[in-house]
Amino acid sequence: MAKPLILVSNDDGITSYGIRILVEIMSELGEVVVVAPDSPQSGMGHAITIGNTLRLDEVDIFKVARSYKCSGTPADCVKLAKHRVLKDKKPDLVVSGINHGANTSISVLYSGTMSAAIEGAIEDMPSIGFSLCDYSSKADFSHIREFVYKIASEALEKGMPKNTALNVNFPPKRNEKIRGIKICRQARARWQEEFDERFDPYGRSYFWLAGNFVNFDKGEDNDEWAIANNYVSVVPCQFDMTAHHAIGQLNNDWDL
Amino acid sequence: MAKPLILVSNDDGITSYGIRILVEIMSELGEVVVVAPDSPQSGMGHAITIGNTLRLDEVDIFKVARSYKCSGTPADCVKLAKHRVLKDKKPDLVVSGINHGANTSISVLYSGTMSAAIEGAIEDMPSIGFSLCDYSSKADFSHIREFVYKIASEALEKGMPKNTALNVNFPPKRNEKIRGIKICRQARARWQEEFDERFDPYGRSYFWLAGNFVNFDKGEDNDEWAIANNYVSVVPCQFDMTAHHAIGQLNNDWDL
Repeated sequence: MAKPLILVSNDDGITSYGIRILVEIMSELGEVVVVAPDSPQSGMGHAITIGNTLRLDEVDIFKVARSYKCSGTPADCVKLAKHRVLKDKKPDLVVSGINHGANTSISVLYSGTMSAAIEGAIEDMPSIGFSLCDYSSKADFSHIREFVYKIASEALEKGMPKNTALNVNFPPKRNEKIRGIKICRQARARWQEEFDERFDPYGRSYFWLAGNFVNFDKGEDNDEWAIANNYVSVVPCQFDMTAHHAIGQLNNDWDL
Repeated sequence: MAKPLILVSNDDGITSYGIRILVEIMSELGEVVVVAPDSPQSGMGHAITIGNTLRLDEVDIFKVARSYKCSGTPADCVKLAKHRVLKDKKPDLVVSGINHGANTSISVLYSGTMSAAIEGAIEDMPSIGFSLCDYSSKADFSHIREFVYKIASEALEKGMPKNTALNVNFPPKRNEKIRGIKICRQARARWQEEFDERFDPYGRSYFWLAGNFVNFDKGEDNDEWAIANNYVSVVPCQFDMTAHHAIGQLNNDWDL
């Protein structure tokens, strides 16, 4: 039987440590092709490149995979991979990551990692974004390898719920072993922004976006709870943004 | 009574024609403050600027509104507006647009216009993205003014369903008058990408993202149907991406 074809992308860039780990693990499961950004794309959300051109160049930096760097966003990478690199041969699995940093809760909206996975889902390919809740560029991934393998294996074997991509987050390495995997919903939380104002050498002001994460969610069925309690969180994400429950309310209450 | 405070942003940039129209209409409803990108940001999705600095400068280009250009994305604009320009005084309404081009169906994910509105909703402010299904930079907006006014008035008066932003799309100017407003769901459709390969003067290849919009949806309750049939479409959008219906399926079918 032919080996499954696995497309790997990310948002930290093709030279990051996390994508190397992911490529290694995926190479145990199938034939791996990498198409990833040539520079960091964190926070890119579901951006695509429409006002500018895209570059795509083959590079030789992984022993176990054909690989290409792309000048675009994570979503661009998946599009270019499918149409130009794989010539419309559908991958059996699209994986993105492993991100250096959490993509739990509301961060899914801002996440380049998840945008690659959601782009895969839109194109009807089983797709998973993996993120480690540790922002260090030299984070320890050793405790999560078995879980990445297991979740990817299940996706290859069972397929994905229709029109969804998985948002998988892992707790950082702690003294206690990971307690297991929880299927979760996205926690109700948000970033409380602060802007750090500074002045350039010419006296003009500029800002750095900063802020604190605030969790409003008291439930135990969400991704924030899972990570805090040392579980792997798996959130199925959809790309239908409709607030279906609000349609009736608008029809009844508003006078349009 | 104090006039309502209305924040205006967009993704086509602060000098675009569509934002001028929106500022004019909003100035009939309240006190308007504009914080919008200093250059076009179409297709930026829900990107935010975290690896780079942000500039924010007051400009004097609208007669009826205080205005600021920002070097960041539409989502950055809303964050900076709230925290630096309005000093945490909450606007009564956040509006984004009027976009030159459709943001119906799956385009909501890629839309910078809608990311400004969704950012507003995350911060618990009534928020609306307006888009005209006409990509011309000199599009005719005359037929939609009354609808923009009406929808914004309703939002100010009735408020918004919790945790939602409205995605409002208008048909292009046609011979027939607009038939009314429909509350819709996001149509099931996607972009079938093609990449246009070219060569630069140095012989290196590059790509333009192109493609065709393919509508799979046979319903009459979705935004594509509404626009095709000369209705204004209003889709309530949420920022909880969880595919709640898939949680049970994963718990039952997958062995994790």
